[in-house]
Amino acid sequence: MSELRKDPIVGRWVIIDPELTQSTKDFSEPKEAIVTDPSTCPFCQGHEHMTLPEILGYRPPETQKDRPGWWIRVFANQPAILHIEGNLKRQGVGMFDMMSGIGAHEIIVDSPDHEKTYIELSDNQVEKVIWAYRDRIIDLQKDERFRYILIFKNHGINPGIKTSHSHSQLLATPVIPKAVKEELNGAKTHYNYKERCIYCDIIRQETIMKDRLVEENDHFAAFVPFAARFPYEISIMPKKHECDFSKITKEQAMDLSKILKSVLWKLYKGLDKPAYSFVLHTCPNHVPKETLWDTMQLDFHWHLEIIPRLLKPTGLEMGSGFYINPTPPEEAATFLKTIN
Amino acid sequence: MSELRKDPIVGRWVIIDPELTQSTKDFSEPKEAIVTDPSTCPFCQGHEHMTLPEILGYRPPETQKDRPGWWIRVFANQPAILHIEGNLKRQGVGMFDMMSGIGAHEIIVDSPDHEKTYIELSDNQVEKVIWAYRDRIIDLQKDERFRYILIFKNHGINPGIKTSHSHSQLLATPVIPKAVKEELNGAKTHYNYKERCIYCDIIRQETIMKDRLVEENDHFAAFVPFAARFPYEISIMPKKHECDFSKITKEQAMDLSKILKSVLWKLYKGLDKPAYSFVLHTCPNHVPKETLWDTMQLDFHWHLEIIPRLLKPTGLEMGSGFYINPTPPEEAATFLKTIN
Repeated sequence: MSELRKDPIVGRWVIIDPELTQSTKDFSEPKEAIVTDPSTCPFCQGHEHMTLPEILGYRPPETQKDRPGWWIRVFANQPAILHIEGNLKRQGVGMFDMMSGIGAHEIIVDSPDHEKTYIELSDNQVEKVIWAYRDRIIDLQKDERFRYILIFKNHGINPGIKTSHSHSQLLATPVIPKAVKEELNGAKTHYNYKERCIYCDIIRQETIMKDRLVEENDHFAAFVPFAARFPYEISIMPKKHECDFSKITKEQAMDLSKILKSVLWKLYKGLDKPAYSFVLHTCPNHVPKETLWDTMQLDFHWHLEIIPRLLKPTGLEMGSGFYINPTPPEEAATFLKTIN
Repeated sequence: MSELRKDPIVGRWVIIDPELTQSTKDFSEPKEAIVTDPSTCPFCQGHEHMTLPEILGYRPPETQKDRPGWWIRVFANQPAILHIEGNLKRQGVGMFDMMSGIGAHEIIVDSPDHEKTYIELSDNQVEKVIWAYRDRIIDLQKDERFRYILIFKNHGINPGIKTSHSHSQLLATPVIPKAVKEELNGAKTHYNYKERCIYCDIIRQETIMKDRLVEENDHFAAFVPFAARFPYEISIMPKKHECDFSKITKEQAMDLSKILKSVLWKLYKGLDKPAYSFVLHTCPNHVPKETLWDTMQLDFHWHLEIIPRLLKPTGLEMGSGFYINPTPPEEAATFLKTIN
């Protein structure tokens, strides 16, 4: 059973999950090969019995749960990083704080097609994936134990997942991820000072200046952040102010699918098929009555962060929080704009 | 010329350094092979002309600067991430903040021996290396442009360095690294509440409980942190309260060299020679008159963080600040204790 531990100095939560590796001393490449053969892939149609039961399926009405015919299928991951059963136990260990590893860890299979990567899916299919993110967030927001629902995708580096079949992941956690908490804090400070959303200010500057802008459409802007930590890092932000991703409209979802696919395609083609991750930053659930969050709807703005995995990180970043990026954001944006 | 850019939301500084890669689109493995042949290694004795001039040399009095005979040699790295020449220019770019890449980037060659890794050096030699860290910090503290002096070592993953010859690095920066700032904040909060140093509290608990303790001697304790982000992560802390590493005594330096070598040996032998990094967290320089730092000497405590590079990080950590560690810290400590 996993547990959550809090760093007593900086307040960062870590999931300690001994089930993830068979031996805690073996960090060599996984011996079990990644399944590239659809005949044994648990995420493929007809193999629904190889996964835990379907939590959500987008499928025609004449098809059955846990049977073929779906366009999108969601189920709990096995082994899960966090587990949905049980009560949230908080306990002290001497001077330290710990919590039971309660949460949810779900797989969202992006399409029934085993071969197609995210960027090869139709706009319509990616829109369905985005809608599944929304539906799962709305459902899990009802669970009072969860403070945050994190949607992410790893492409190319995906520990614990044994198939190459395209999928996204969801992690519902009893704590707010540190990166999001820092953004909430920073956004609040800006709002207190200027009475404006800092993300709206950034979107305005990036869409007017255009030197870091990679692409925009009616509802979204995609740009390389001014202080990008990683080469070709990209943020996608909705132009209309909204803190909660789950309020996305059908029209916005279509525009998001288009810009997300287009930007990932540029990375794929321009940078020789890099591994990448993206993480959705939306507002937390069940906002406690802390001053930090009393203006959250006004000052926070959901967005997507895309991180291509081009450089091997050294320990310097982890040990100091100091990032060194060899690619000026303006140069990265200029290059990506040329890729079609 | 590199520049420093500040993330407007979370306040994180990033070094943008286009000199680091020849092409900003080429992230394949470096074409220039790592020099394992001492005859062409710029860090070897007799090749002093292949580096920038010596800043510090520990050498017998009869030998000359930039000539063979040294035990430890320090010089500016080339290409440097930050440059020592020039004034510190702060400027706004629209709503964003930027600074010129003023700083220092130095190489500390750990020994004249090309073949020996850090753990194979004598205790006496590692003590000299530690003393060189101290001497360089004391010297650079005098430069009013620098807010922080970061000492670190990358072993096994070392972008930009073209030789396998053992060395440490120093980065003097006009900003305080985010990880250190967070520790200063957290330590201050604890002190305000308890009137005790949180690091002293942690050392007391770890040396009494012993379940995460890897090793201790008269002056230092080495343990796996309660909320370790990475498998087999280790902190080394001086038992006597001190915020400033440069106040280290000869006796402490000898004890530090012993415990550091021993712990690195345990990682090396127990985990099949992993790549690792360590980073020294000491107090900042030229503390501005901010309330954050008015009790720094009482509440902050210098320490060393060792990070073995066992897992390929996914984007989840970078995108959410949420770490998943498959190795319970108690198990990691128990295992390392058995390695001699």
